[in-house]
Amino acid sequence: MSNKRNLFIGLDLGGTFLKYALGTADGELLIKDKKPSKADESQDEIFNVIFETISELKEKAAEFDGQVAAIGLGSPGAVHFEECRLIGSTPNIEKWTDAPIRKRVESQFEIPIWADNDANVMAFGEARQGAAKGRKNVLCATLGTGIGGGILIDGELYRGTHYAGSEIGHVMIVHNGRKCNCGGLGCFEQYASAPAMVRNYKEKMQELGKTLPADIGTEFIFKQAEKDEIEAQQTIDETCDYLGTGFASLVNVFNPEMLVLGGGVAEAGEHFIEKIRKAIQEKAMNPALRGFEVAHAQLKNDAGVIGAISMAFEEYEKAK
Amino acid sequence: MSNKRNLFIGLDLGGTFLKYALGTADGELLIKDKKPSKADESQDEIFNVIFETISELKEKAAEFDGQVAAIGLGSPGAVHFEECRLIGSTPNIEKWTDAPIRKRVESQFEIPIWADNDANVMAFGEARQGAAKGRKNVLCATLGTGIGGGILIDGELYRGTHYAGSEIGHVMIVHNGRKCNCGGLGCFEQYASAPAMVRNYKEKMQELGKTLPADIGTEFIFKQAEKDEIEAQQTIDETCDYLGTGFASLVNVFNPEMLVLGGGVAEAGEHFIEKIRKAIQEKAMNPALRGFEVAHAQLKNDAGVIGAISMAFEEYEKAK
Repeated sequence: MSNKRNLFIGLDLGGTFLKYALGTADGELLIKDKKPSKADESQDEIFNVIFETISELKEKAAEFDGQVAAIGLGSPGAVHFEECRLIGSTPNIEKWTDAPIRKRVESQFEIPIWADNDANVMAFGEARQGAAKGRKNVLCATLGTGIGGGILIDGELYRGTHYAGSEIGHVMIVHNGRKCNCGGLGCFEQYASAPAMVRNYKEKMQELGKTLPADIGTEFIFKQAEKDEIEAQQTIDETCDYLGTGFASLVNVFNPEMLVLGGGVAEAGEHFIEKIRKAIQEKAMNPALRGFEVAHAQLKNDAGVIGAISMAFEEYEKAK
Repeated sequence: MSNKRNLFIGLDLGGTFLKYALGTADGELLIKDKKPSKADESQDEIFNVIFETISELKEKAAEFDGQVAAIGLGSPGAVHFEECRLIGSTPNIEKWTDAPIRKRVESQFEIPIWADNDANVMAFGEARQGAAKGRKNVLCATLGTGIGGGILIDGELYRGTHYAGSEIGHVMIVHNGRKCNCGGLGCFEQYASAPAMVRNYKEKMQELGKTLPADIGTEFIFKQAEKDEIEAQQTIDETCDYLGTGFASLVNVFNPEMLVLGGGVAEAGEHFIEKIRKAIQEKAMNPALRGFEVAHAQLKNDAGVIGAISMAFEEYEKAK
């Protein structure tokens, strides 16, 4: 090995883009960009995008007087962390079924790679470089199309026995409630995700015989609420009430130091976060609320690549 | 230190009895008994019962050619594990508020003591010597007056940031449902504990104008169900359905290897356990169910003292 400084590649694979970054051990990003992931072409094509990106970043590392010591990758789906391969399929990238990430990457490059579920990697990023920096017991939730999550216990990601844990969007908050595509009934994300929020709002408006633009999203609801529209305000209050139930249950079970909220819905601002905080405080047990904080995710769109870099760095150090 | 073999004391403090045992490092019980805990007299009186018991067991240890190396104690309430003292009060033993267990015991005896919440200690017993022996990720639930629980992650008890975790009876399964004495709404134990089951049954019978003996318990309901009484059978089915919702949520979050069910209600037999197993399988996510088992607690009334002995032994070894 040369005396060049160690740099790390962070990859965040999604259905549309592969986000990538080159960073230092302490989380500084030297390069950050994204390119189409070609997720609907073929598994080989996706791997080619990944290989090409790694090659480019290897060259860039030399320009920064460094060398790539390890790679981290966040992927949709359940990831077998020890073997760094997909377990079965993921609805987000159909062609990615059983993808043998480590095997393929390490056959192309003599650089070790670690891969994990993308929500886990984002949670890891927030815990190491973001809102929960220095915290040990942390819940991270992403409020978007679904409710994704990552759980840190004693500073490390909790992955479950078969890498199938942390499905916080599938805590059932309404006994025998709405059918969820996971097979369960009354799951958290059926009531408090972005689509659920829009659905609740539309139902309210339909009942009143009011018409709406066709493709409204949660931004529309937040805007209407600012204009003092009662139905929008009620929808937001009800969403926060549902979020309170789901998160309070998790607080009673995990007694975490912090809940970090990210994702599109959480971008609605501090006022929204404050309402969620209040709902949790009303519903959770007092001993579990001692010192408990609710914080806004800090890394936004970079959480994935920063988490992947942090993971690559720490696993590389452990493996040395 | 002499060459005598190391023995361990296990204590299980309750509102009525102090259960106690003397055992070996590998969990064999040499002595096992109980005496009134004098829980309603005073904190000093409770400590005197504990001191007296330790003195007696020290003498007995000598008779078994051994010496007491360490003591383990399970107590109701939240226990600060590092300092082995109660945090605040526990409804089960009013006089036990803030009890400084380690401080008092170690001022009387030159024997180290470790104390933890009784549900945690029972879970530890099942994980080391009972139904979940050798398992690493385990949920233990006690179905009784409430729903208590202990969670083992990677073989160790998960206690939460401020020793306030594992409150699985307070996962909220009915959004804004029945008021719980924890301050929450719709908690698991408001629907699936023994009193909740009796309440559900009574409501059903009242609706039908049927009279019931005054002080019925869950045994009565199980007996009636065996006699093919429809209302009793419905009550049991509904209870299992509620249990399915609460446990499936926990399975989706923890992806445990095993759920161990103990407590009075769980004694209803394999048929009841099988119904709960089925309800969980219907509601939880498939990846989280891979290899998942539901088992009946094995240690019954001894779980507390056996868990306390296992804990004393392991902590003693760690501290050496």
